[in-house]
Amino acid sequence: MSKPGFERVALIGIGLIGSSLARRLRRDGLAAEIIACDRGRETLDKVRTLALADRVTDDPADAVQGADLVVIATPISAYAEIGRRMAVGLAQGAIVTDVGSVKQAAIRDLQASLPAGVHLVPGHPVTGTEHSGPEAGFAELFDDRWCILTPLPDGDAVALQRVTQLWQAAGMRVIAMDADHHDKVLAITSHLPHLIAYTIVGTATGLEETLKSEVIKFSAGGFRDFTRIAASDPVMWRDIFLNNREAVLEMLQRFTEDLTALQRAIRWGEGDKLEDLFTRTRAIRRSIIEAKQA
Amino acid sequence: MSKPGFERVALIGIGLIGSSLARRLRRDGLAAEIIACDRGRETLDKVRTLALADRVTDDPADAVQGADLVVIATPISAYAEIGRRMAVGLAQGAIVTDVGSVKQAAIRDLQASLPAGVHLVPGHPVTGTEHSGPEAGFAELFDDRWCILTPLPDGDAVALQRVTQLWQAAGMRVIAMDADHHDKVLAITSHLPHLIAYTIVGTATGLEETLKSEVIKFSAGGFRDFTRIAASDPVMWRDIFLNNREAVLEMLQRFTEDLTALQRAIRWGEGDKLEDLFTRTRAIRRSIIEAKQA
Repeated sequence: MSKPGFERVALIGIGLIGSSLARRLRRDGLAAEIIACDRGRETLDKVRTLALADRVTDDPADAVQGADLVVIATPISAYAEIGRRMAVGLAQGAIVTDVGSVKQAAIRDLQASLPAGVHLVPGHPVTGTEHSGPEAGFAELFDDRWCILTPLPDGDAVALQRVTQLWQAAGMRVIAMDADHHDKVLAITSHLPHLIAYTIVGTATGLEETLKSEVIKFSAGGFRDFTRIAASDPVMWRDIFLNNREAVLEMLQRFTEDLTALQRAIRWGEGDKLEDLFTRTRAIRRSIIEAKQA
Repeated sequence: MSKPGFERVALIGIGLIGSSLARRLRRDGLAAEIIACDRGRETLDKVRTLALADRVTDDPADAVQGADLVVIATPISAYAEIGRRMAVGLAQGAIVTDVGSVKQAAIRDLQASLPAGVHLVPGHPVTGTEHSGPEAGFAELFDDRWCILTPLPDGDAVALQRVTQLWQAAGMRVIAMDADHHDKVLAITSHLPHLIAYTIVGTATGLEETLKSEVIKFSAGGFRDFTRIAASDPVMWRDIFLNNREAVLEMLQRFTEDLTALQRAIRWGEGDKLEDLFTRTRAIRRSIIEAKQA
């Protein structure tokens, strides 16, 4: 595996993912120079304190000057404006990639504003924690996880190869697929689980006060795993649901049908149906352990 | 904290919880003698190999002979028969407790068959993992978790005190409440989360084969946390849902209403509503971390 060897990498948005990438680039000498760009002054102060970049700025056009790689790692709702603002600063031949969880929307919002001669390689490192902000990042976040790239049909092959090398060097396994397929797969593996977790934790917050304090006390019975997921970044997740609406609503419809069937089985005391499902779901867990994604 | 100091402890059912208790009793010298009872021959062989008990048997009446403490740790559907079968062997003054996740059903199924002079103290150590069987247990399983006891209104005070000491000695914090209140609290903190996790993993197993293999591959986005929960013991969980039907269905109804509201917000692009909920759910996570139950 050859090193990607970038000269100047501009990171637009420096939260959990952006700062983890900065740490990895630094640790393994994968970039000669790192520019960090964020619209939050507090965030940029933290980046300075943590010495995550060679230079910080709040202006995307300034950040991308002379960069051979630009990585967008903000919530998706900021993409269109970032695309417009950075367009004037982008060098010919520069590669632009992103880490967003919805790929069709990412392409829609970026493609229009990028000048000719700039190569867009949409990407999604499938990893994360429930923590956010530059202080939450760590260099090992990407190890052994999958990164999905969704190259454009007429995209540049060399640019694709270099972004592939970037994430491989960061520790990831890289795979390419169509953007619409990505959005469908992630709707079930990530977006629906988050939606469900947010809902159940929300249901608990709506309980009477006495019951609520007990929910916290006895959360070890299963609930606390949902609270971890439901502590993920609110703006990032708002944007994901708004931008992958169709696929999320379809998966949610399937889930609701299955839940209704299970509800009926409980109401009518159909133990066999319950046991049968609960036995089948164990097999999926084994597959995940075997695939070393547990 | 004084040691409970039991002479002969009979463990009826020796899976994850029973075997963890056996290990803890041995490690800390909390019982002079341990008798393990299970209807599975394979399970009893494992108990022998792991040297978890002084004696093993598949007969509850034999197991409880001369025991001053009996701990029932089987799925709830076995309680009524165990109660009937062990009744003849129980010594006067013996304490019977259990670890079941539904307390009203546990009391209903045990109380009828226990002879006068035997003290029932229903209990529920709120802990566990997704693994089952005697080989899955470990002595530290109970550390810092809560054990809920649901003593009967006319129950023996000394028996309650000794069971309290047992779980405290095993590392737990012990609290007492009414059985019906327990069942309501656990419906939201444990039963509903398991039901939801089983459902979503079931929904994924119903997908087309190609999509299914990708679900496993990219499960790190949130899905894998649900598969861990949905790998819990099928028979145990079948029994929980069948025996806590009313409380589970009520919490499920609340959850479904909240999910429908969220679905509507996504469909209509109401970002403010989403962000507002996702921000509120973060607070619950903080409370759980502060309560040291994370």
